[in-house]
Amino acid sequence: MAHINLPDGLPGIRGPLAFRPETAKPLNDLVDVLLRGPHPLSPGERELIATYVSAQNDCRYCQTIHGAIAANYLGGNEELVLAVKQNPDSAAVSAKLKALLAIAGKVRQSGKDVTAEDVERARQEGATDLEIHDTVLIAAVFCMCNRYVDGLATWAPDDPDFYRQRAAKVAAEGYSASTLTQTAAR
Amino acid sequence: MAHINLPDGLPGIRGPLAFRPETAKPLNDLVDVLLRGPHPLSPGERELIATYVSAQNDCRYCQTIHGAIAANYLGGNEELVLAVKQNPDSAAVSAKLKALLAIAGKVRQSGKDVTAEDVERARQEGATDLEIHDTVLIAAVFCMCNRYVDGLATWAPDDPDFYRQRAAKVAAEGYSASTLTQTAAR
Repeated sequence: MAHINLPDGLPGIRGPLAFRPETAKPLNDLVDVLLRGPHPLSPGERELIATYVSAQNDCRYCQTIHGAIAANYLGGNEELVLAVKQNPDSAAVSAKLKALLAIAGKVRQSGKDVTAEDVERARQEGATDLEIHDTVLIAAVFCMCNRYVDGLATWAPDDPDFYRQRAAKVAAEGYSASTLTQTAAR
Repeated sequence: MAHINLPDGLPGIRGPLAFRPETAKPLNDLVDVLLRGPHPLSPGERELIATYVSAQNDCRYCQTIHGAIAANYLGGNEELVLAVKQNPDSAAVSAKLKALLAIAGKVRQSGKDVTAEDVERARQEGATDLEIHDTVLIAAVFCMCNRYVDGLATWAPDDPDFYRQRAAKVAAEGYSASTLTQTAAR
């Protein structure tokens, strides 16, 4: 049971978002810009960063829904998502994304853990300032979201199909729009 | 030196905010609603939560600027801010705020660390669902901001007067407005 009285039927972050629409709007706007806005990294790559950080933070709802959204963008490749969660360096992603995932993992621990060498590795693989900035911010945003979801003890569905269906809706409509049109448990 | 090429002269989070205005807008909107919107907790109390979390995360810029903003709201009482940073339970704040600060400290470690007993303690001291929700989200937001500021290796001024002057501007104008009107190093 959640720590506060949240609207019925909405899993994970969606209960708190519905409880407090004043903070939901900027939160959804932020995630839409970061994960879906025009960018040199594809939406699938950015969702992989969100998924990896959420997995490292052991947030079941966030890692499962963002993993499903990443897979949706990546042609349904759930094995690749699992491989990134387990070990980015051995996953079949670009060398640039591996370097950015390493930065994201450091940010998760503490911003201070990111070294000049971590950033130089990403640059050597072709990462721009924008890509480095957004990797740091995506990792930081999911350190927020994971704490928001788990700090209020929200619930997470068990059925993987729930996440696949929701992922298709988010991938099609975006975070803000799919939250505005949300109905119970979908 | 920061890890990426940020606009000159802007300390802490303000460099990255100026670098990426698309994400700055929802970030500032979120912090304005959470820390300055209509609320049963005063702006000073909410800034104390932000300051405490930032101090626990050892983020020098965030703990100093939000501590200065808290003190500005609290009649210039910098001693109280220091006392909260050192040990909320022995600081001269309400029993309700002590219980909320304890929840914020747990969220900082991991959302999963917040227990039903932590929440019950806050309720016994009169905290509402909204106050518990916003405490969790403020703590989560500063876990994001601290990582954003330190993950990009931004700089922080040494002079306490810098923070006092900036705090007066933020307290008067809000986060969005004072960012829009920002000029170098002020």
